[in-house]
Amino acid sequence: MTAGPEAYRVVGTRPVRHDGVDKVTGRARYGVDASMPGMIHGKVLRSPHARARILRVDTSRADAHAKVLATTTSADFPDPGEGMAEANESGLQNVRFMAERVIASSRVTYEGQVIAAVAAASPHDAEEALRLIDVDYEVLPPVLDVREAMAPDAPVILDDLRTETGGVLGDAPTNIAKHLVYEEGDVEAGFAAADLVMERSYSTAMVHQGYIEPHNALAYWNQDDHLIVESSSQGHFGIRDELARVLQHPKSKIRVLPAEIGGGFGGKTTVYLEPLAAVLSKKSGRPVKMTMNRIEVLTGTGPAPGAFMTVKMGVTTAGKITAATVDLAFEAGGYPGSAVGAGCLCSIGPYAIENFRVDGYDVVVNKPKSHAYRAPGAPQAEFAVDVLVDEICQALGMDPLEFRRLNASTEGDLRVDGTRFHPIGNVETIEAAQATDHWQTPLGEANGSKRRGRGVASGYWLNGGGKSSAVARLNDDGSVTLLEGSMDIGGTRTSVAMQLAETLGIPIDCVDPIVPDTDAIAFTGVTGGSRVTFATGWAAIEAARDLQAQMIDGLADYWDVAAESISFEAGTFSQNGTSLSFAEAAAALQDDGLEVVGKATAQPQGSGNTFAVHLADVEVDVETGKVDVLRYTALQDAGTAIYPPYVEGQMEGGVAQGVGWALHEEYVYDDAGSLRNASFLDYRMPTSLDLPMIETVIVEVPNPGHPYGVRGVGEVPIVPPLAAIANAVSNAIGVRVRDLPASPRKVQALASGTPAA
Amino acid sequence: MTAGPEAYRVVGTRPVRHDGVDKVTGRARYGVDASMPGMIHGKVLRSPHARARILRVDTSRADAHAKVLATTTSADFPDPGEGMAEANESGLQNVRFMAERVIASSRVTYEGQVIAAVAAASPHDAEEALRLIDVDYEVLPPVLDVREAMAPDAPVILDDLRTETGGVLGDAPTNIAKHLVYEEGDVEAGFAAADLVMERSYSTAMVHQGYIEPHNALAYWNQDDHLIVESSSQGHFGIRDELARVLQHPKSKIRVLPAEIGGGFGGKTTVYLEPLAAVLSKKSGRPVKMTMNRIEVLTGTGPAPGAFMTVKMGVTTAGKITAATVDLAFEAGGYPGSAVGAGCLCSIGPYAIENFRVDGYDVVVNKPKSHAYRAPGAPQAEFAVDVLVDEICQALGMDPLEFRRLNASTEGDLRVDGTRFHPIGNVETIEAAQATDHWQTPLGEANGSKRRGRGVASGYWLNGGGKSSAVARLNDDGSVTLLEGSMDIGGTRTSVAMQLAETLGIPIDCVDPIVPDTDAIAFTGVTGGSRVTFATGWAAIEAARDLQAQMIDGLADYWDVAAESISFEAGTFSQNGTSLSFAEAAAALQDDGLEVVGKATAQPQGSGNTFAVHLADVEVDVETGKVDVLRYTALQDAGTAIYPPYVEGQMEGGVAQGVGWALHEEYVYDDAGSLRNASFLDYRMPTSLDLPMIETVIVEVPNPGHPYGVRGVGEVPIVPPLAAIANAVSNAIGVRVRDLPASPRKVQALASGTPAA
Repeated sequence: MTAGPEAYRVVGTRPVRHDGVDKVTGRARYGVDASMPGMIHGKVLRSPHARARILRVDTSRADAHAKVLATTTSADFPDPGEGMAEANESGLQNVRFMAERVIASSRVTYEGQVIAAVAAASPHDAEEALRLIDVDYEVLPPVLDVREAMAPDAPVILDDLRTETGGVLGDAPTNIAKHLVYEEGDVEAGFAAADLVMERSYSTAMVHQGYIEPHNALAYWNQDDHLIVESSSQGHFGIRDELARVLQHPKSKIRVLPAEIGGGFGGKTTVYLEPLAAVLSKKSGRPVKMTMNRIEVLTGTGPAPGAFMTVKMGVTTAGKITAATVDLAFEAGGYPGSAVGAGCLCSIGPYAIENFRVDGYDVVVNKPKSHAYRAPGAPQAEFAVDVLVDEICQALGMDPLEFRRLNASTEGDLRVDGTRFHPIGNVETIEAAQATDHWQTPLGEANGSKRRGRGVASGYWLNGGGKSSAVARLNDDGSVTLLEGSMDIGGTRTSVAMQLAETLGIPIDCVDPIVPDTDAIAFTGVTGGSRVTFATGWAAIEAARDLQAQMIDGLADYWDVAAESISFEAGTFSQNGTSLSFAEAAAALQDDGLEVVGKATAQPQGSGNTFAVHLADVEVDVETGKVDVLRYTALQDAGTAIYPPYVEGQMEGGVAQGVGWALHEEYVYDDAGSLRNASFLDYRMPTSLDLPMIETVIVEVPNPGHPYGVRGVGEVPIVPPLAAIANAVSNAIGVRVRDLPASPRKVQALASGTPAA
Repeated sequence: MTAGPEAYRVVGTRPVRHDGVDKVTGRARYGVDASMPGMIHGKVLRSPHARARILRVDTSRADAHAKVLATTTSADFPDPGEGMAEANESGLQNVRFMAERVIASSRVTYEGQVIAAVAAASPHDAEEALRLIDVDYEVLPPVLDVREAMAPDAPVILDDLRTETGGVLGDAPTNIAKHLVYEEGDVEAGFAAADLVMERSYSTAMVHQGYIEPHNALAYWNQDDHLIVESSSQGHFGIRDELARVLQHPKSKIRVLPAEIGGGFGGKTTVYLEPLAAVLSKKSGRPVKMTMNRIEVLTGTGPAPGAFMTVKMGVTTAGKITAATVDLAFEAGGYPGSAVGAGCLCSIGPYAIENFRVDGYDVVVNKPKSHAYRAPGAPQAEFAVDVLVDEICQALGMDPLEFRRLNASTEGDLRVDGTRFHPIGNVETIEAAQATDHWQTPLGEANGSKRRGRGVASGYWLNGGGKSSAVARLNDDGSVTLLEGSMDIGGTRTSVAMQLAETLGIPIDCVDPIVPDTDAIAFTGVTGGSRVTFATGWAAIEAARDLQAQMIDGLADYWDVAAESISFEAGTFSQNGTSLSFAEAAAALQDDGLEVVGKATAQPQGSGNTFAVHLADVEVDVETGKVDVLRYTALQDAGTAIYPPYVEGQMEGGVAQGVGWALHEEYVYDDAGSLRNASFLDYRMPTSLDLPMIETVIVEVPNPGHPYGVRGVGEVPIVPPLAAIANAVSNAIGVRVRDLPASPRKVQALASGTPAA
């Protein structure tokens, strides 16, 4: 089914995205714009302690406040176990922990955890009333480091937590929620066959997705027990289903409206305010709106886990990898569930290795419960692997791109989970990197205290599939209204609409994409895992085919011929020498009174893995430790690039975030477990002044598992920057960087040979 | 397909309606609750003159107002003729007149006509700016009476108007927009065969629908030329299509959101504020909200036409009607298009007459352009016919119900349009009236200046069909989300959902009906013509059958059997001794990953005509002319009553409005054509204190043209009250009432034998 780019009329073009102007002119309706008649405002009381027992929560003084219409504590929420008789012990444990993360009951496991909430006439009244809630804590010393948390004598944060290994729970209380093991080949034999074996440890900090828009929710629990929620999220069906679980309320009685989203990057795939607003609405009988401030976003939502990692690799003098082991310990945060699983699967993905063992540990610490952040787990894991690869290349005196080409995983090679790769574009991407002007151009000299360096790193991401739905409705002017179940984060209205237009042979500006609420379209999975252009695009293709088949049936009546005698090509219906354009056919069918609506729910399996190679040039001031990024080139196999401007946009965005992770961003805690930099003044994200114009090269190796060859593009570009920048800094200062962020303090200390203060 | 009521599980029951609690607790979202980020407010400048030439409209002073963001006049609207090359002259004329009714260009034909509009930061700023718009009028004397307007030497209001007869336009300027003629049999021979021939003239006043909620619109014309409108209407698809016509903008680029509606009764089936808000939004770049006040509603929207009517009837001494002629002249208002057509078709509907001629005249006068009002045209026409019938019965000494039974139209009898009746419940309804306690109970005596009387009248209405769409989505708990294209005015969410539930064999509280916007469901006609429970119900039945067929296909996979071997009955799927309840089947299919969505667009033709008989007892104070309604019984053939509480509700509501029409309501004009009673203080609608508890009797003669026998129930109950009350008053005072409203002034004059002042 896959055609070359030259065969397409719409795919690969660069139309103006449908939602663009509304978003840049401030007209788009975000969660904060939502309102309802009689609406009141909710605010959250959060724990000031990182670890504590809750001895008492008393809302009686707040309830007596004249402007307060409802308060809520965990006592208002159903027992998380109830109605889950059939769930296994591990599932039950997860539901219980999720309920505590929504609102704490007997314990606090991170600063900022929800203790209670208030709904009042105005946000100010609600904030005032928060101060009237009395809470008694027994404060406990926090555990903030994964190594400390994994120690045999560590204080246990969750006394009901047991280590899960292969679906089985252990016996003893622990902070290790999960231990994953992936092993193939003969690791010991592999290392024995190597000429050089190198083992190093690495660490990265907890970082936040840093979306501009804070979390928000408007909930109205009406008198006939239907709950209506509007919020900004990456998937309104996921919000609906989590609400159903936490509130033990039927999914069919919950309708979630998708507000536009001001950034998510994985962090808006779960409920935070929604269940609180729902319960406050149920208790007050009023619609309740809630919005977080930035402190709440940084302390109360789900950043990416920091990690401690050890990688060991064996190579021959010719540069061939013979074996590897990877050990990943990820910060789950205050409850289990880090991205360590995907980190394991991605870690050595770019390299064809027959003998390996990958161990992953999900470790509870007294920090915010971590959540997905763009290619979750992969940036950390591939940072460790690709810095070790760089050090090996240095030891062997090998060109790092040549090393990658030599060891590149290709079709048929092992994946970490033991399955084998389908056709992939790894080698093509490496070769494209070798051909870039960037790679061909020498670094140039620096002056004074400045040193220059170049770094290379690879990235690998799985890409997701799953269930998506689309409805295509024919209008009488030949345009098509397209309902998509996927929230549009990064221009997917357009990338999905283009696939419909391509299938129907009509121009893209004849397609009007809409994202309706959970009642108006069938189930569609989260906007995440780089799945939307792949899976929702597939649903749109199928809906287009359904629509086209119905049009042919209608035209069979119109022409009074058999449907089989009608052909359709390039937007034209023909039979026996007569033909009608798509728009003419639409008008003819409308005149006949026919309403043509195509629909599909697709659950495609063939998502294609994707690879990236990044090149970074930096200049380091060894006196101050400041790092400037001079030049940056990102290459990536997009499969077929349906909508190239937004493939490039995703690549640029991923680099920007990855540079922040590499150089600037980290959660800074004091000993009491309190976040010391909970604002955008102190939590340092890169701005446009910190970045050069990022060069992008799209490599197109179509995915044979999709009609138009889509792989998914949104996540892999955040994977290589950590190692690319770290390797460039190491190259500049002659000392290896193994601990991120490479902040000025650390870089200056490395460069001067004195330990950082 | 029609089963007796006893065979139904859901049809005919009395569940709580889905939208009930939200509406009575003030939580439902009406048009006035709509808001958008950056929203501004629009107000309308209206003509103070009933008839004038517009010499100049100058908005420059308003444009200079600091808080004004946009003004608009007719100059901003496209030429109504443009792009309509294929329309005939009559169609072009209608589009031109509609455009003028939206916003006047060179002339004014009624007080309250739109001259210009302003959008400003607040409603008050907009009102202030209206005073800065300079308009020069050449004021002309108004024509306010249909007889005056029809006179050969009458001033011509619209110099481009030509009389349309059978689709052909006349040559000379005129105020008569249309002349309809329906003739069957031999009228002269019929009158010759009569023993008694009686001819009388009648009149009714212009009256308003009196919905509580004023018209409103929120429009946002975004930068990529998509127009989004939210307003309270009886049909968001109709609003979309009229916007497309007036603005000459593609339907596919207009999305209309259905706000809940606070009453419509036919008056909210056309655009008023929507196009103004749209143009103001386009010019300002901001969402624009507009709401009318009560004066604007009464002068600027579409009331029901007043009428002047002459009826002639011949009867034998045995009481058999031998011939009739009906002459109806209806007030179109300032532009053509009254309900005289339906008035003609309904006029003699209750009576089997072989020889008749019905003439209808649509007459332009300087009053608001009339619009639909509940059974449009029928209350006036049948008032004239049924008062004459009463006078004939009096002359013959015949019981009026017995006269009706003797002359009742039944299956196979002629309809006014020359076609013949399908099975109808006319006789059954008359016989049910004869059997009522009300009819069997004597009137009782009045004291002092009080006189009592009893009146009887019949009602007939056509009922509509047309296109409707429904989507039924299966949830994993066995509930079904039902999307209906019809705006819910009178509980149709429930009456449509009940038909889906009946078809699927599930309880009604497992169905969640939703009314989505015009992009989220296929075309559905207006909520009017008593068509929704019939046609949208039909679509829901078809969507249910589609859903059920998909479930059987899915279960064929699940059970690994042929689909043909699975049976479905009373909500249970069975095959070879195994069975699953509907909910169990839903869960099984969901576990299989199947999304089941049934859909249908139906365009059923077999809507069934309906009949009503009303009995009214009144007490008249002959000294003051005040009339009290002592007892009122309404009988009606509902076909199958799907949702009996709302059939009764419609009957009660129709009687209440009809009593207003009979006794109180009228547009009172001064000689300049200015409305003197443009408020609810002066325009007298009946309140609960003016009405007794209305007794209702539902007669069920199922319509063979619908799977569950639905006919449509909302309109016919407003038809009989005018004649029933007039006949009762005549019976009380011994003088015939032929001019409505029978206000105290008129009744006192009739009773005292002195002409009203």
